[in-house]
Amino acid sequence: MTNTIETLPTPSVVIYEDVVKRNCKLMHDRAISLGVDIRPHMKTHKTIEIGKFQTETINIKKIIVSTLSEARFFALSGQFKDILYTVPIVPTKLAAAAHIHSSIDVLHLMVDHPDHIKAMVEYRNQHLGALGNKKWSVFLKIDCGYHRAGADPELPSTIKLVEQLTKSLSDHFVFQGIYTHSGHSYKQTSPDGIAKIATSEATVAGNFAKKIRSLGYPCPIVSIGSTPVCCHLPNNLKDLGVTEIHPGNYVFYDLMQVELGNCKVDDVGVHVVSRVISVYPERNEMLVDAGSLALSSDPGCTHLPDRAPGFGIIVGDNNLRIVGVTQEIGKVSSVNGSPIDFNKYTIGSIVRIVPNHSCLTAAMFSNFNVLSTESTTQVKETWIPNKHW
Amino acid sequence: MTNTIETLPTPSVVIYEDVVKRNCKLMHDRAISLGVDIRPHMKTHKTIEIGKFQTETINIKKIIVSTLSEARFFALSGQFKDILYTVPIVPTKLAAAAHIHSSIDVLHLMVDHPDHIKAMVEYRNQHLGALGNKKWSVFLKIDCGYHRAGADPELPSTIKLVEQLTKSLSDHFVFQGIYTHSGHSYKQTSPDGIAKIATSEATVAGNFAKKIRSLGYPCPIVSIGSTPVCCHLPNNLKDLGVTEIHPGNYVFYDLMQVELGNCKVDDVGVHVVSRVISVYPERNEMLVDAGSLALSSDPGCTHLPDRAPGFGIIVGDNNLRIVGVTQEIGKVSSVNGSPIDFNKYTIGSIVRIVPNHSCLTAAMFSNFNVLSTESTTQVKETWIPNKHW
Repeated sequence: MTNTIETLPTPSVVIYEDVVKRNCKLMHDRAISLGVDIRPHMKTHKTIEIGKFQTETINIKKIIVSTLSEARFFALSGQFKDILYTVPIVPTKLAAAAHIHSSIDVLHLMVDHPDHIKAMVEYRNQHLGALGNKKWSVFLKIDCGYHRAGADPELPSTIKLVEQLTKSLSDHFVFQGIYTHSGHSYKQTSPDGIAKIATSEATVAGNFAKKIRSLGYPCPIVSIGSTPVCCHLPNNLKDLGVTEIHPGNYVFYDLMQVELGNCKVDDVGVHVVSRVISVYPERNEMLVDAGSLALSSDPGCTHLPDRAPGFGIIVGDNNLRIVGVTQEIGKVSSVNGSPIDFNKYTIGSIVRIVPNHSCLTAAMFSNFNVLSTESTTQVKETWIPNKHW
Repeated sequence: MTNTIETLPTPSVVIYEDVVKRNCKLMHDRAISLGVDIRPHMKTHKTIEIGKFQTETINIKKIIVSTLSEARFFALSGQFKDILYTVPIVPTKLAAAAHIHSSIDVLHLMVDHPDHIKAMVEYRNQHLGALGNKKWSVFLKIDCGYHRAGADPELPSTIKLVEQLTKSLSDHFVFQGIYTHSGHSYKQTSPDGIAKIATSEATVAGNFAKKIRSLGYPCPIVSIGSTPVCCHLPNNLKDLGVTEIHPGNYVFYDLMQVELGNCKVDDVGVHVVSRVISVYPERNEMLVDAGSLALSSDPGCTHLPDRAPGFGIIVGDNNLRIVGVTQEIGKVSSVNGSPIDFNKYTIGSIVRIVPNHSCLTAAMFSNFNVLSTESTTQVKETWIPNKHW
């Protein structure tokens, strides 16, 4: 039996192929128009299918992953041969990384501390040939103001890392360039604020590249990212020294991206399908069978002024919001207090939910139900994402 | 090769068998000492093994689940024949429920609205024999003040539900009694506050049972729950009319339960094992490879006064807290600002994390690494939890 949205078990996730393809094309075209490359991130969806949409207009299918399990998954597909694992590499993960690196063109790793470099040299010396006679390929992660990962570009020790990667230890390394991530863009309150972060990230990254080049070191790639920033890039991006962008969440977007002004509700490519499990007219509330395991417990953009709290909105009825989640249950309230239409939301009826954070929501499901467009109810395919670690 | 905690891939989850068994025994003994039954919840761990620990001292292994996938999982094990699915039942789930009900002694379902009852009658009339010639076995969920699921015990329509289940539609139903869940216990700020909720829940449930019995309806079971409440039960629980308790989270506990005063840190039976992936002495911070997918994005007891924000604490170093999570990365800061010992927390070194919310954390992992005690590093077994829906 072919599933339709009405026969899906709930909770389920549905993906709109046309929306995802459109999001991929627009972001690709934006990069092209600004004269930079795009190296898309896989972590939001973790599927071969969407990875192909993200890269089909690119000559070299360069992708980014957030776990070695994802790296293995995309490498094994045979379709992605240039993969960047963006989390600073720990010594115990070098064996797995070397294996993947030897099986494809290149697995780039991320470093931001001399101990990463030291461990990689030791590993390569102790396991001759484990990398398929390749050198380690690395990006240097620098901190553009987010203060999560990344070496401080103002510290002399950061220049020393470049020196090691490109000169004194260059027998072991192919230095690709620098990489930044502007996660603080999610804490802005307006597109203008995000645009300022975009310019700031590009400037920090571009200036550091110029600085190290002026010291005689190479720096082929200058990669900046985060989906909010990639939605508000400056026109002089290339002049600032950036060579590529690396967005991820944009394939699906989500309620946070809508509320930050990075997309419209119609651009959200993933919904959680849920059913009304009970109604409580006496308190103008109802429950659905999507809770924190289906929607995640990410409260979203709580820093935005006047933002109604909650974990998602009901598609087609923006006044209805998931105001609370427990493990398997979501509570729906009317934001402005107007009466819920309980003739429409009968027990067992289907609702679609725009989740706060599509990366976390998608990670909760073992399969994605693909619909061509939001207007069809027919499930055309099932895509199986990579899971866990 | 047998895994030790040092060779586990990270992030991983470890479970301390002695702690979990102790938690199970203490909660069981508490119920016995108060003269009530215990019907333990499986949703926190979703494993056959822990389900056995929770029920091994009970004659009839009565358990609770939060999804029909869990119900199927525990039914298929052949070891659990009395299962309660606690989410209000929707019409489209009746076929699966009937199948499970017919395969074991009983699958109890939960109702709190006349439309649940109507759909069950229609299903049974249309699918003669689908239930293995059984009637539907049901609990009535009533609202004890949490205002999530549950019929309002003050409304005449709630008495009408009992009338339907026990008289006018009794050909279709075996009425088990009433069930309440005091999720608002998690919003208290002290054990005293939780104890008040416990007495209030027991009183609301007990009084409703007395009321319907006085009207001539049966009410064999009066079941109350939530782990906080079950940690602070009144001595006159039985006199208030309660016949059983149904805690779930207590098998593992977590940081929220510690902070609410329901257990000690040493009672937490589940830790996330993670590695330091980079260090930033210049800002007294470090990163670990456990982020929102390993720890969940549940911010925990943010309502507690003076509670430091975060998503977990480092075991053995309560001053170190996960102050922020992104998908695969946790940021560790020193709560009181004292310098982190970076000689101890070198890149690649193992940390164990007490997560805010063990139910959500456990749900993120496909396997649980079992250690006998916290003092051993040897993984003795791997338990496989039920996943998804």
